[in-house]
Amino acid sequence: MAERAALEELVRLQGERVRGLKQQKASSEQIEEEVAKLLKLKAQLGPDEGKQKFVLKTPKGTRDYSPRQMAVREKVFNVIISCFKRHGAEVIDTPVFELKDFDIAGQFDPMIPDAECLKIMCEILSSLQIGDFLVKVNDRRILDGMFAICGVPDSKFRTICSSVDKLDKVSWEEVKNEMVGEKGLAPEVADHIGDYVQQHGGVSLVEQLLQDPKLSQNKQALEGLGDLKLLFEYLTLFGIADKISFDLSLARGLDYYTGVIYEAVLLQTPVQPGEEPLGVGSVAAGGRYDGLVGMFDPKGRKVPCVGLSIGVERIFSIVEQRLEALEEKVRTTETQVLVASAQKRLLEERLKLVSELWDAGIKAELLYKKNPKLLNQLQYCEEAGIPLVAIIGEQELKDGVIKLRSVASREEVDVRREDLVEEIKRRTSQPLCVC
Amino acid sequence: MAERAALEELVRLQGERVRGLKQQKASSEQIEEEVAKLLKLKAQLGPDEGKQKFVLKTPKGTRDYSPRQMAVREKVFNVIISCFKRHGAEVIDTPVFELKDFDIAGQFDPMIPDAECLKIMCEILSSLQIGDFLVKVNDRRILDGMFAICGVPDSKFRTICSSVDKLDKVSWEEVKNEMVGEKGLAPEVADHIGDYVQQHGGVSLVEQLLQDPKLSQNKQALEGLGDLKLLFEYLTLFGIADKISFDLSLARGLDYYTGVIYEAVLLQTPVQPGEEPLGVGSVAAGGRYDGLVGMFDPKGRKVPCVGLSIGVERIFSIVEQRLEALEEKVRTTETQVLVASAQKRLLEERLKLVSELWDAGIKAELLYKKNPKLLNQLQYCEEAGIPLVAIIGEQELKDGVIKLRSVASREEVDVRREDLVEEIKRRTSQPLCVC
Repeated sequence: MAERAALEELVRLQGERVRGLKQQKASSEQIEEEVAKLLKLKAQLGPDEGKQKFVLKTPKGTRDYSPRQMAVREKVFNVIISCFKRHGAEVIDTPVFELKDFDIAGQFDPMIPDAECLKIMCEILSSLQIGDFLVKVNDRRILDGMFAICGVPDSKFRTICSSVDKLDKVSWEEVKNEMVGEKGLAPEVADHIGDYVQQHGGVSLVEQLLQDPKLSQNKQALEGLGDLKLLFEYLTLFGIADKISFDLSLARGLDYYTGVIYEAVLLQTPVQPGEEPLGVGSVAAGGRYDGLVGMFDPKGRKVPCVGLSIGVERIFSIVEQRLEALEEKVRTTETQVLVASAQKRLLEERLKLVSELWDAGIKAELLYKKNPKLLNQLQYCEEAGIPLVAIIGEQELKDGVIKLRSVASREEVDVRREDLVEEIKRRTSQPLCVC
Repeated sequence: MAERAALEELVRLQGERVRGLKQQKASSEQIEEEVAKLLKLKAQLGPDEGKQKFVLKTPKGTRDYSPRQMAVREKVFNVIISCFKRHGAEVIDTPVFELKDFDIAGQFDPMIPDAECLKIMCEILSSLQIGDFLVKVNDRRILDGMFAICGVPDSKFRTICSSVDKLDKVSWEEVKNEMVGEKGLAPEVADHIGDYVQQHGGVSLVEQLLQDPKLSQNKQALEGLGDLKLLFEYLTLFGIADKISFDLSLARGLDYYTGVIYEAVLLQTPVQPGEEPLGVGSVAAGGRYDGLVGMFDPKGRKVPCVGLSIGVERIFSIVEQRLEALEEKVRTTETQVLVASAQKRLLEERLKLVSELWDAGIKAELLYKKNPKLLNQLQYCEEAGIPLVAIIGEQELKDGVIKLRSVASREEVDVRREDLVEEIKRRTSQPLCVC
C-alpha cells in the first residue's frame, strides 16, 4: 500500500507540472504530452479509491497509509487509548507508545499497580478480538535466586538468562546445549535450571515453589514468590487469573526490570478455511522497575514503577492480515445513514432531514445530486458500507414518517420522524471492535 | 510550557547520568554531586504535575506539549474530527489538516457540497464554544466580474485583489490610497470598486446585486451571484443562514479558488471580568476549485472540488488563552469515579468494584494503598478533578449499596450496587465541550 501512496504522490507531482505548463502558456503539444503521462499514472492508480466523498487529512506525520490502513490503525488506537483512559491515563505525545506509573515514594502498596497493568493488557487484547492470548508472568528476583541456588556464577547470570528466554522457541535440549557447550556451564547446573524453567502454571505453582526446600531459602526468590502470590490474589479479584501463566522461563528485559515481568502472547488459533495461519508471539510486555524518581524520596525508599508497552505495529499487521484473509471489507468512513429520496424534486427535504440528523450527532450523508435515482443511492450504500438508508417519499412526507431501510437485510419500516434519531442510534450502537 | 518539556528532558538526562555513574561504581562524592544537580532540576520542575498516576505516551511526533496542552489539543481535535466523521469523511494522515471533495465529474449538482462545507464550519465553531463567529462568503467570479465592469486592467486584477482583501483590517481610505498611490489605479475606478466592496449582507444583497444594471451584464458575475442565491437557499435549510455574511471584500486564495470562497472569523466578545481580550480573526477558510481530476472526465467537464481548512494552531491558542483567563482547571485525565473505602481492610472490595466498573466501560481509579484514609481519597479527587467517589463501607456492604458522593456538592446518596454503573453514566454524560 506504500506503493499506492508513492503513485498518488507521482500523480500529484505530474498534475502540478501540467498546471505549471498551463500557467506558463506552454505549447499545446507539450501540455498534451504531459497530460498523457498523467492519465497513464492515474490509470495505474486504479479506480478503487476514487469514490471518496470527503478525505480528512490529519496531521500525524508524512502520509504512508491508505484510507483502509488508516481505518484499521485508528480503530486499534481507539481500543488501546480508550482502555488507558478508563484507567486514568494522561496523554502526552512522544515517538513511543508506552504506559508508565510514575508517582511519589511510599504511595503504592505492593502489587496493586502491577495487577492493574495486567488487567489493562487483558482488557486491550480481549477488546481487539485478535484471538486467544496468555500473559506469561515471572519475577526477576525469582530468576536471580534460582540461578544462585543452582550454582550459576554471578558473571554468567545475564548470558544464561538469554539462553533461558529462548525456551518459548526452541527445545530444552537445544537450550541446554547452548548453556553447556557454548557458555561453559556445568551439565548438572544446567539440569538443575532445567527442572525449574520448564515449569509453568497458576498460583498453585507459586505455592509449590514457596515450599521448595532450596528456593525458599533464597531471600530474593522468597520475596518474588511472595509478591507473585499476592499478585494472583488481585488478579483473581480482577477476574483475569485464568489468562495469566507463571512461567519460570520468561526472562525479558532484565537490564531494566527489577521485579515482576510479564509478556502477552497470542496463541495459535485453528486456521479458518481460506485464512492464512497467523504468526504467534509477543504483542505486549511490561514489568516493574525502580525508577529514577526513587532518588527523590526523602527517606531514600525505592519507588515502584510499572511500565507497559503494546506492540502496536505488530497488532496492526495481525488485524490487517486477518481482515484480508477473511476478505472482510474495511469501512473507511463511519457514516450511519444515507438520506435518500424515492422521487424527484425532494432535494430540499433531503437537505432538511440530513441537517436534522447532523445536529442530533448522527453520521449522515446524502448524494450531491438534485434528483438521484433510488437505485444509485442504494448502490452507494452497498459500496461505502453504510448500514441504513432513510428514504423520503411524497407519501412518507404526508404521513409524517421516514422509511428506514436496512442495507443488509433490505427490510424497510416506517419510522415516525420524531423517533428517527433514536431508532438510528439504537440500530447502529455497537461495542468497539476492530474485526 | 515548552520550557517545562525542556526541563523534564534535563531531569531525565541528569537521571541517566546518575544511573550511569552508579553502574560504573563511581565515587560516592561524584554521585552525590550529580544527585544534588538532579534534585535542583527537579525542584525547578515543581510538584504540580508530579501526581500523575499513569502517563500514556502516544506516537504523534516529538514531545512538545505538557499534559495540560495535550488535553486541550485532544479535545479540540475530537470536536473537529467527530464533526468531519459525522459528514462521512475518511481519515488519512498528512502533515496538513484539510478537508477535500474529491469525486468524478458530473456527480455533484451546484452548491450542495459547498453548503455542506459551510455547515461543517459552523458545526465545528459552535461545538468549540470559542465565542460568536461569522462566515464571510464571496465568489471569485463576482470579484472578477466586478473588477472588469469597474475598469480594472486584467494585469492589475491580482494586485487590486490583495488591496481589497485588507479591508477587514484597515479603512477604505487606506485601501484606496494604496490602489491609487502605489498601484496606479485611476481614482474613479477605485471609487467604483469602493461602492461594491464596502457592502455586506445576506441573501437580500445577492438579490440586489442581481438587479445591479452593470454587474448583472457581466456573465461571470451573474453566474457567481446565481450560485450564491442557491447557496443561501441551502444554508437556510441547514439552519445556518444567520451565520453567513456575503462580503464583497473577501478576496482570499484567488490563485487557487475558482468559485465560492469563504472564511470564518471570530467576533470580538465583551471581555469578562479578569479575562484578557481575545484576538479576532480567521479560524477556518475554504472554497471551490477546479481540481486536477477535471482532466480525467471523458467529456472534459470541469469538476467541482471544495476544500476546507481549519486553523487548528490558532484555535488551540484561543482555547488555552480563554481557559487561562478564566483560571479554569484543565483536567488531564478523564476519570469519572474514584473507588474509595471508608474503613480499613477493604482493599479486596475496592479491587472487585473497580474491576466491575472497568468491565462496564467506566473510567475509574483507586489509590494504590491498602488502607488509604478517606480524607486522602477525597483530596485526590479534588486535585485530579474527578467528579464522583464511590465509597465502600462495612455498613454499605451489608446493605448491598455503594455511597456515591459528588465531589463538587459533597452530597452523598446510597445507590444499589446493581444500579451503580447506570447512575455513574447518567451523572457523567455531557456534551463534548472544550471550555
